Amino acid sequence: MATTEYLGIDVGGTGVKMGIVNAETGNITNFQSYDTATWRESKHFVERLADAIALQLYQHKNVKKVGIGLPGILTRDRKTLIEITAIPEIDGTPLVEILNERFTDHEFFLENDANAAALGEFYFSPEKDVMPENYIFITLGTGVGGAAILDKKIFLGGDGNAMEPGHVPSRNGRVLERNVGKKELLMLANDMRTAWRGKTVLPSDGSISTTGLVVAAEEGDELAIAIWNEVGDMLGEMLVGLIRILDIKTILIGGGLSASFDFILPNISKQLDYWLTPAYLENVQIKKALLGNDAGLLGAASLCF
Amino acid sequence: MATTEYLGIDVGGTGVKMGIVNAETGNITNFQSYDTATWRESKHFVERLADAIALQLYQHKNVKKVGIGLPGILTRDRKTLIEITAIPEIDGTPLVEILNERFTDHEFFLENDANAAALGEFYFSPEKDVMPENYIFITLGTGVGGAAILDKKIFLGGDGNAMEPGHVPSRNGRVLERNVGKKELLMLANDMRTAWRGKTVLPSDGSISTTGLVVAAEEGDELAIAIWNEVGDMLGEMLVGLIRILDIKTILIGGGLSASFDFILPNISKQLDYWLTPAYLENVQIKKALLGNDAGLLGAASLCF
Repeated sequence: MATTEYLGIDVGGTGVKMGIVNAETGNITNFQSYDTATWRESKHFVERLADAIALQLYQHKNVKKVGIGLPGILTRDRKTLIEITAIPEIDGTPLVEILNERFTDHEFFLENDANAAALGEFYFSPEKDVMPENYIFITLGTGVGGAAILDKKIFLGGDGNAMEPGHVPSRNGRVLERNVGKKELLMLANDMRTAWRGKTVLPSDGSISTTGLVVAAEEGDELAIAIWNEVGDMLGEMLVGLIRILDIKTILIGGGLSASFDFILPNISKQLDYWLTPAYLENVQIKKALLGNDAGLLGAASLCF
Repeated sequence: MATTEYLGIDVGGTGVKMGIVNAETGNITNFQSYDTATWRESKHFVERLADAIALQLYQHKNVKKVGIGLPGILTRDRKTLIEITAIPEIDGTPLVEILNERFTDHEFFLENDANAAALGEFYFSPEKDVMPENYIFITLGTGVGGAAILDKKIFLGGDGNAMEPGHVPSRNGRVLERNVGKKELLMLANDMRTAWRGKTVLPSDGSISTTGLVVAAEEGDELAIAIWNEVGDMLGEMLVGLIRILDIKTILIGGGLSASFDFILPNISKQLDYWLTPAYLENVQIKKALLGNDAGLLGAASLCF
């Protein structure tokens, strides 16, 4: 029997990545990357996307299912885009209907990108054989995104767009991602650098980068560690709420900023120890998501299962 | 065709209430109330419960389904008690199995009491014809309990005991119900009374009651209103998190302390206005639960649907 293959498409604010994904191994072939800005400037984003899909499907006649991850919110039936902040001209597009008209022999599955990445871990993680059926997925990057897998399925909540941990109340009268989104994290770091009186390798001219913060922490820099501790505290408080509301005890942390995992984990754990009862603490597990750079594309392909 | 009737049982720390519930009208007949402490002292709580059930079923041979609400957590399959804080000697009891052995012709449905009360609103509320399929239910009393109805069903979460809003982080390094549970609310009120320099009808000898606080607020007492504002602020912050995590926009508030509804609502709304985006605010509705004193018993009966 031939191996099943899916087309996975990760639509992002910077690039649109796609490739043929082997359903058993998660191996990606015929990878293509397109520039989002160029497609937007053409004023025909959806047509460019459909053309790129046509090319992939022409080259892979065995592929009958296409999964697409998008950075925004969708109707509950997952057929129409509601709000794609990075590409607002496609808001309201009935994308599944449009693609079905052109590709009558294929099935299309849309999903929010954090949801797709969360599901991708279930089907393609190197640890997929020991993945629980329920877990919370947090993605750290420009913002703080989230998803929950419940009974092996994406948790949609009431109106289809559940799991926005970046938008829950956090410290200083701000929602969480206004404290620990990438931009805000760097502002916090530069502020803490200005106030810092001890030794540190971090620059004092406002040019701290997230990669620099991770490297400095790896080298034992006390200020860098103190900054990640702050981030861990705020993430930990939010996670306590999620755990108590969803009764899910495995948490995966992914996204570009999850490179900081080893340095945010101590204070995430400190917050869980403070707020949760022993019965919970025995069972809570915080782990790093394992798909890394391919999470978006593999997540999109996992929608076809 | 005969009207369908169910036996509803509300097991509480103080009393066990039961009655025959008309599935169409929510009318309760043959209401019985038993003293929880007396049954506990007999060292045969489960047998006393089964005897009381036997009496009801003997008198109502048409009743084939029994719903039981319990103040604690259950296994995910809803057959065994895990932790019933007020009646710890029944922890671990396989209650459905035990009842099935004695009542071979009947079906039994167990549920956490807040979950049952939430579902009861769906089937028995005077506004049931306009109830949405998704809503959050908050119960204010000794503690702060919660439930969510998703697609007309109780939301169980990952391990079966979702929706513990009383246990999410709140102000002053305390979980929410350590701030606004009944006892803590009265401590807050007495502390605010001590510091108060204006006019107030509230007593200064530490004897403030929750009923007194509601009555004083109804009379326009500024301190009483200020106390309920504090409670509304803390509940509102928690609700923002629930709304963002579950994407559910209707919230019902029940429980004994919901008599304060009109006085906590202004600051709940203030917090929602502060934290939520306009698209959310347009659709969020905060309402008082309508079943009142019968919520527990009707909720238990609603498990039979």
